[in-house]
Amino acid sequence: MSEAKYDVLGIGNAIVDILAQADDALLAAEGMPKGGMALIDEARAHAIYEIMGSAVEASGGSAANTIAGVASFGGKAAFIGRVKDDEFGRIFAHDLHSIGVDYATAAAAEGTATARCLILVTPDAQRTMNTHLGACVELTEADVDPQLVADSRITYLEGYLFDPPQAKQAFYKAAKLARAAGRKVALTLSDSFCVHRYRDEFAEFINGHVDILFANEHEVEALLGTTDMEAAADQLKSQVELAAITLSAKGSMLVRGEERVHVPAAPLERLVDSTGAGDLYAAGVLYGISRGLPLAECGRLGGLAAAEILSHYGARPECSLAELAGVAA
Amino acid sequence: MSEAKYDVLGIGNAIVDILAQADDALLAAEGMPKGGMALIDEARAHAIYEIMGSAVEASGGSAANTIAGVASFGGKAAFIGRVKDDEFGRIFAHDLHSIGVDYATAAAAEGTATARCLILVTPDAQRTMNTHLGACVELTEADVDPQLVADSRITYLEGYLFDPPQAKQAFYKAAKLARAAGRKVALTLSDSFCVHRYRDEFAEFINGHVDILFANEHEVEALLGTTDMEAAADQLKSQVELAAITLSAKGSMLVRGEERVHVPAAPLERLVDSTGAGDLYAAGVLYGISRGLPLAECGRLGGLAAAEILSHYGARPECSLAELAGVAA
Repeated sequence: MSEAKYDVLGIGNAIVDILAQADDALLAAEGMPKGGMALIDEARAHAIYEIMGSAVEASGGSAANTIAGVASFGGKAAFIGRVKDDEFGRIFAHDLHSIGVDYATAAAAEGTATARCLILVTPDAQRTMNTHLGACVELTEADVDPQLVADSRITYLEGYLFDPPQAKQAFYKAAKLARAAGRKVALTLSDSFCVHRYRDEFAEFINGHVDILFANEHEVEALLGTTDMEAAADQLKSQVELAAITLSAKGSMLVRGEERVHVPAAPLERLVDSTGAGDLYAAGVLYGISRGLPLAECGRLGGLAAAEILSHYGARPECSLAELAGVAA
Repeated sequence: MSEAKYDVLGIGNAIVDILAQADDALLAAEGMPKGGMALIDEARAHAIYEIMGSAVEASGGSAANTIAGVASFGGKAAFIGRVKDDEFGRIFAHDLHSIGVDYATAAAAEGTATARCLILVTPDAQRTMNTHLGACVELTEADVDPQLVADSRITYLEGYLFDPPQAKQAFYKAAKLARAAGRKVALTLSDSFCVHRYRDEFAEFINGHVDILFANEHEVEALLGTTDMEAAADQLKSQVELAAITLSAKGSMLVRGEERVHVPAAPLERLVDSTGAGDLYAAGVLYGISRGLPLAECGRLGGLAAAEILSHYGARPECSLAELAGVAA
């Protein structure tokens, strides 16, 4: 196996976030399950935007956030995801290029606009997401460059890619290419609602194609039907090489064969917005794994990146994670 | 004089901010004077965006920020300013409408894009701005609705409006209409570079048309040629009804005839980004004045709003200023 050009390649929905504060009453009135991600059409996107407060726009997308985090740690990173050639598409591309991520998926010239996620942040810092997939549905197998996958130590896939029908095929293609090139495949379950939508497919995919699995407690419960994370870890250790389970304020657990590490949550300077916390946790762990760091250190980097993201609006780091973590970039 | 429908009407450049962190070396290499505002063309805007880091987009514009602040305090507010009918134009309008501001200036269907301000925030939290005025240059006298001006207790104008040639005429028209309707005219000098560009015109305008003047130390120095703010206050008290001079970490000074109030700066939870601090100070003072509050309380509200804005990225409040200040909305 040749030396890898990239530490991590991410494949995911290319999204710009629109974030605003909201109260619980608004979520209730709109029937939005707190903490979840709902897929919405363009008309509903307009309707929700109308009732949202003054907002801030920032690049998002689960795997894209993770890739931005890997780059911020000093990792070599690439991304595949589809935008349209419009204002938000240019913003999305700029924000990846500006931190050194190799991102060259052609922007769609026609069709619906770049995807947007309308995010309501409640006073408890929870984020509730409403995604209009827009141009993301244009992502196809043809966008997965085999050379890019072969050149990447880890190919990281977000579960949300199961939503756009053609993207799912790109997802499978990337996983097979990575394994064929002797590389690793990482997957995040994305959210418990997503796991419920595709449980059987996820279970089959994990068993057959995944080396590194990211999930939180709710997603593990949706996948395995248990709230006992130690029991879940016992199951997962035979299915994947590494499972990283986030436990909110209780930190995280990393499981690799008989090795099991519990990492406490990093201290929080302040808790503002949980958008991207899981994505950035994955960034720290993936960076650590790609550099061969011990499991406990991988978990520490994940917790640190998550704490940075929790301290402000938006899902992209506002400082150099390499400096924050004291790692050599 | 009839009861006013609005507390404050703002007229200004309608801008979306693009904010990113930058170091001093980048400012030096690009020849950007720290803390200033430079006017740039579209080509330069593209060039600066290329070298900027991962950014966040948020509605801005000096007077628009102030108006958003007045609304957040619970004031009745309106705004006049020109965007194009594009993505940023819709964002700008949404962010004013969402907090209850009456904003109905027709978006331009043709011509250049909605204005954007590329803001580089250095580690000392100073912001250095590069503005591509875009659709702002389309603002004309015709956009100033006489009824709106007559219905507003205070018409607030930003000095930056002197930059787009036709906007200056709108500026004079609004001031004359306000005075003719028995209302007050407020002006912010915007920045010291702006004052240097138009010093004589500013001096003449202040003497003939302004009731309430906002300026920081550098702007006062550019206007009056003195660094002694007490001496400046002596001069200004005969020219305007109220002068509010901001003194950075030293707070502010409000001067009304023989009345002179020094207000200490509000305690800062954290200092992240100075974008909009002066705009939000003006919001607090204008809200207080429009409600007939004592000068010291007006200054306190200004300082409080500035401190909120300094604690995060972007120039629009992230919480209800009415709640923060404990004032009845």
